[in-house]
Amino acid sequence: MKNNLARPLLSENSDIAQKVGEIIQAVRVGGDNVLIDLTEKFDGVKLAELQVSPAEFENINISDESKNAIIFAKNQLEINHATQLPKPQKIQTCEGVICERQARPIDRVGLYIPGGTAPLISTVLMLAVPAQIAGNGLKILCTPPNKQGQTDPHILFAAQLCGIETVYKIGGAQAIAAMAYGTESIPKVDKIFGPGNRWVTQAKQLVSQDSEGAAIDMPAGPSEVMVIADDEANPAFVAADLLSQAEHGVDSQVILIALSEQFIGRVRSALESQLEKLSRKNIIIQALTHSRMIVAENINQAINISNNYAPEHLILQINHPEKYTDKISNAGSVFLGPWAPETIGDYVTGSNHVLPTYGYAKNYSGLSVLDFMKFISFQSVTKSGLVKMGPYAEILSSIEGLDAHKNAVSLRLAELNNG
Amino acid sequence: MKNNLARPLLSENSDIAQKVGEIIQAVRVGGDNVLIDLTEKFDGVKLAELQVSPAEFENINISDESKNAIIFAKNQLEINHATQLPKPQKIQTCEGVICERQARPIDRVGLYIPGGTAPLISTVLMLAVPAQIAGNGLKILCTPPNKQGQTDPHILFAAQLCGIETVYKIGGAQAIAAMAYGTESIPKVDKIFGPGNRWVTQAKQLVSQDSEGAAIDMPAGPSEVMVIADDEANPAFVAADLLSQAEHGVDSQVILIALSEQFIGRVRSALESQLEKLSRKNIIIQALTHSRMIVAENINQAINISNNYAPEHLILQINHPEKYTDKISNAGSVFLGPWAPETIGDYVTGSNHVLPTYGYAKNYSGLSVLDFMKFISFQSVTKSGLVKMGPYAEILSSIEGLDAHKNAVSLRLAELNNG
Repeated sequence: MKNNLARPLLSENSDIAQKVGEIIQAVRVGGDNVLIDLTEKFDGVKLAELQVSPAEFENINISDESKNAIIFAKNQLEINHATQLPKPQKIQTCEGVICERQARPIDRVGLYIPGGTAPLISTVLMLAVPAQIAGNGLKILCTPPNKQGQTDPHILFAAQLCGIETVYKIGGAQAIAAMAYGTESIPKVDKIFGPGNRWVTQAKQLVSQDSEGAAIDMPAGPSEVMVIADDEANPAFVAADLLSQAEHGVDSQVILIALSEQFIGRVRSALESQLEKLSRKNIIIQALTHSRMIVAENINQAINISNNYAPEHLILQINHPEKYTDKISNAGSVFLGPWAPETIGDYVTGSNHVLPTYGYAKNYSGLSVLDFMKFISFQSVTKSGLVKMGPYAEILSSIEGLDAHKNAVSLRLAELNNG
Repeated sequence: MKNNLARPLLSENSDIAQKVGEIIQAVRVGGDNVLIDLTEKFDGVKLAELQVSPAEFENINISDESKNAIIFAKNQLEINHATQLPKPQKIQTCEGVICERQARPIDRVGLYIPGGTAPLISTVLMLAVPAQIAGNGLKILCTPPNKQGQTDPHILFAAQLCGIETVYKIGGAQAIAAMAYGTESIPKVDKIFGPGNRWVTQAKQLVSQDSEGAAIDMPAGPSEVMVIADDEANPAFVAADLLSQAEHGVDSQVILIALSEQFIGRVRSALESQLEKLSRKNIIIQALTHSRMIVAENINQAINISNNYAPEHLILQINHPEKYTDKISNAGSVFLGPWAPETIGDYVTGSNHVLPTYGYAKNYSGLSVLDFMKFISFQSVTKSGLVKMGPYAEILSSIEGLDAHKNAVSLRLAELNNG
């Protein structure tokens, strides 16, 4: 069963690694000029200014329908992500000793939004809403320009709505390098968020391994969905959910676990008829070549298969899905029942759609406000606290052979005894 | 000021990177036999069994004084870390839509405890207590054996106290490789925790970049302390705290920010006289060569310097340190006042001593229960929830050019309209 669900192998990219390394080095040395050159080379436009101007923000012209949809999605995300803001943890561990853990926003964060044929406004919201709630001091956004050197107005509208008006028209590995190390006009950040192609992913990995670079949100891989469906599920719904994942890219993986071959047959029929009308049919057909439809004996076995696979998205189109949530141990985001297609979570439930892919759901979480913050520990110790704890610390530092550690306690205890 | 506080450069280790890569590959191919060979090569002992036997746990023979100190430290950690266990977050984002986020323990975790001249029992507790609270299904521990092929009984006592009885006598890059990929006798884990030398650090970095490997706790660098002291602080205490950090290793960095040259002079005198009696004097003297003592105009300026440096440990030996905690934005762990030496936090306050070094406190947190868990998102949507949200999702997926996404919503809405 396990081999059946092997993920598509990612092609070796040592060539990309080297080229990305060269781009990063070029940006570190050459700054803005190199960014302008690389944007001309890769995006086909010679920029006069890297940064989106105030006038471009003032002249955003999109439909009210689009605005309302973006505002609705943003509000949903705000409601849900506000619950993630951590409360200070403070406790007296023994008399005279208080341990406290306080969250702080990471000072400076950089958001990356890929380019392409259509503006990924939902990704802007998924990154910018938790950043706004975390309260990062500096928030910048990079996204590649179109051939006219412009940024899509939907992207600008979504960014502005979340309090981000520092947007740069650069993309690819050069954008990651610019945010990780800074240039004349682009400030260095402490952590970089957002999806991207192989070049962006490789650049994020490289800068995250350099202590002078920047941390990153999470490792990346192709997107994927697993649907667990019983025989009473609607085959058209299941087919539509598989197709919506498959359209993301040729390396997307979609998996159906059903309880009978008959149901799989019904899904296949629905899938073929729906596919004909879809604009991204060619991408979908390629993605479907490494997809799987398998039969499990029962829902519990299906959940076990899912836990081993650790899908980014898991859709339960089964009776009483809520009975099984406690058994799900590895998954990014889970959709319960027939009325929760993945699409709805990608855009408007308020849940974050930046999720661990490629099995990383075993050890990583979906994006949250916590990713935009870090914790600082505080320890307050009174004289009586030190008197109580000190002797134990002396014994433990002796066992570890660290007598300067012991001395820092002993001379304080001596002072207290003398005082 | 900034250059003044440059951290010691880490020497290039491309040679280590290659050797570590070879060790990892050898372990993946050769399994247990390679582990036995490498342990003979690096630790000087030919092991008959990789795993610590039940008899070795039964025959633990350490003093009651040591046991009591370990138990005290463990209880302190438990009290503090229990506050970190996350509660489920559940909220209705709009009518008919519930978003929930639940924490789950990472299935399998591996803890690494370095060898050396003395047993690092405190590190066992710092890793094993949060793992016990998180409730990971599988917990294993690797630590190099001594020349007689034995594991220090203090380590075994601390591990057993925290519910870990699966301990392997292997160290170095080979231990990290074994836990990341598994061998005949050592189970593969999902995430690896713990400090180590360059080889271990390099191995952790390599396996964390491989989707078939394992995640790791945090990036590592040399340990460091910054002390901010006013003129009323006790120079002997300040000197002792600087020395206790300096004894960790020759690349440790210790920094004092004082308000006058006079005070720095008093600290230097105290430091010289204390140094003479310390067993790790030679290490300390080397560490002090890249340490700094600087004068700030006032406490606020000192805090600014500290925030830019982002120290692993920050000790505030100043009047009313609690007045300044809100201004501290980057630090691993902060010690407030004269009776809170770093030693006490290293062992017994209950705070975790596994902390971000080398400036990583800007974007990473000290170890907590959260690091042993991950979150899963759940989304429940009723018919009316879909009717409310669906049209917005349709608009947003249209803007993004993803019509299979839109279709997954549209055909459900059509079903509801027909039904």
